[in-house]
Amino acid sequence: MKERIVITDVGPRDGLQNQSKILSIEQRVELIRAIAAAGVPQIEVGSFVSPRAVPAMAGTDQVFAALDSQSDYRTPSIALIPNLKGYELARDAGAKAVTMVLYASEGMAEKNSAMSMTDAEDITMKILRLAKQDEIEVVATIAVAFSCPFDGPSDPLLVQNIASKFIGAGADQLVLADTIGSADPQQVRLLTEALVKSHGASQLGCHFHDTRAMGLANVYAAVESGIRRFDSSIAGLGGCPFAPGATGNVATDDVAMMLQQMGFETGIDLGRLMKASDLAETLTGTAAPGGRSKAWLQGHLDKQAG
Amino acid sequence: MKERIVITDVGPRDGLQNQSKILSIEQRVELIRAIAAAGVPQIEVGSFVSPRAVPAMAGTDQVFAALDSQSDYRTPSIALIPNLKGYELARDAGAKAVTMVLYASEGMAEKNSAMSMTDAEDITMKILRLAKQDEIEVVATIAVAFSCPFDGPSDPLLVQNIASKFIGAGADQLVLADTIGSADPQQVRLLTEALVKSHGASQLGCHFHDTRAMGLANVYAAVESGIRRFDSSIAGLGGCPFAPGATGNVATDDVAMMLQQMGFETGIDLGRLMKASDLAETLTGTAAPGGRSKAWLQGHLDKQAG
Repeated sequence: MKERIVITDVGPRDGLQNQSKILSIEQRVELIRAIAAAGVPQIEVGSFVSPRAVPAMAGTDQVFAALDSQSDYRTPSIALIPNLKGYELARDAGAKAVTMVLYASEGMAEKNSAMSMTDAEDITMKILRLAKQDEIEVVATIAVAFSCPFDGPSDPLLVQNIASKFIGAGADQLVLADTIGSADPQQVRLLTEALVKSHGASQLGCHFHDTRAMGLANVYAAVESGIRRFDSSIAGLGGCPFAPGATGNVATDDVAMMLQQMGFETGIDLGRLMKASDLAETLTGTAAPGGRSKAWLQGHLDKQAG
Repeated sequence: MKERIVITDVGPRDGLQNQSKILSIEQRVELIRAIAAAGVPQIEVGSFVSPRAVPAMAGTDQVFAALDSQSDYRTPSIALIPNLKGYELARDAGAKAVTMVLYASEGMAEKNSAMSMTDAEDITMKILRLAKQDEIEVVATIAVAFSCPFDGPSDPLLVQNIASKFIGAGADQLVLADTIGSADPQQVRLLTEALVKSHGASQLGCHFHDTRAMGLANVYAAVESGIRRFDSSIAGLGGCPFAPGATGNVATDDVAMMLQQMGFETGIDLGRLMKASDLAETLTGTAAPGGRSKAWLQGHLDKQAG
């Protein structure tokens, strides 16, 4: 039996919020449904943040409502939330899981959330307790787990302490995020190996960007350490506001193909994933920077079909 | 002291022969000099094959002559040769090393060289003896070492046998080539680990294409096995005639940056490498498919300078 790896597509959130074109609620729902139809087991469908700060994510409650009303939609939907108000909105919208962001640097905590690292931890801990009562899963994501554009390299021991605290407190998933795409596979291997040794792999995940072209190498390094959960973005949509010209999240297209070829079960139908990827490019009006394997894969699938 | 990894830029050969635009001798020399100026320690500067079959490589003797006449050019130049006649031309042109291609499948041997696998081995063995007398290094490259577009997955034991035979016979370098960019890092890890165990790493190298976006992941997997020699192509120039839409060789830009960030010494100046990469794009008139880290790296270098 094949070993399973769980991919969470964060394109409808991390991807779309970094595009210049803002999609309508209907378009966001269409994209999410296409990703779900490909068998991606978890999708971050939006965030409950200030629509003034992130206009692309306005109306995420309507996205949840539309998905809920569609009888064939069964993929667990995750909402990113910044604070208690966001949590309440996500809960009321029917989110099955929420993502909270923690920080491995003060610089990024301040820039991204106007909070200190400790404030972010305190709020996440409060929400974690509420979510337990509400039977909502919590994904705790440690931003800039490898390096921060403001404060430089992150301290691996600090990251391990944050991870221990939140895994100990019952976080359902703990994700190490290479927010600016700066990590190399050697760094990834060392940090993930240490964390898997302390906590086992079941709750640990990784979130990579492909800024320096090392996205897939980092996924492989984490797999070697035992990590079996990855964030990725359909067609590689995304980017980083702090690194102009940077490419986006590692593409679900590339990650799924590599992991399946390596013999893992992802539950994803690559043909349908290509359709979702094409849709992502059409809707956003960008030739996505990621999904680099797409030309090959489309040719391969056409040949199989033809 | 940092551990060293030797990069061979094959762009002036593997890259240019797959471009629709054919460069002049002067342009080829300009590109080779720019790559050498960046500190790349080995360059495959051309091939001595039929100019009718590969028009882009016509006049490789003139490329050697031009490089020889330039007093500041000291980078070892490698020529790819298909047969004894090619060897004599390369020797007369002053090549310090020659690359001979061996095959892990009959299908590719026939298609690429109109020979059997055994014929290719026999000719390479003859040339290896001549080259010893002439004090010319021999790089024996096993094509389709992982998978063949005609015959399917290659037999790892067969690849190991070919490698043993030619390392035993005194080949200076033995390169495993993923000719069509089909390998995944798990396959790379297994094959390279077995070969390093049998022969040590000093003569072994790997040659990857980025067709399925796994190029850098494969480099990392090979590094983990102990491999310290890699072929790559400036700006990711290249391609594969058997996989339409496929991207090219793994980019020297990406490989050098990853390995240096991982703490290896490559001897390469990344700023000068970017200049060579820009030149490669200008001369060929293509926005190269590889060199994906370039946007980030150029921004980073500008910031350091500014």
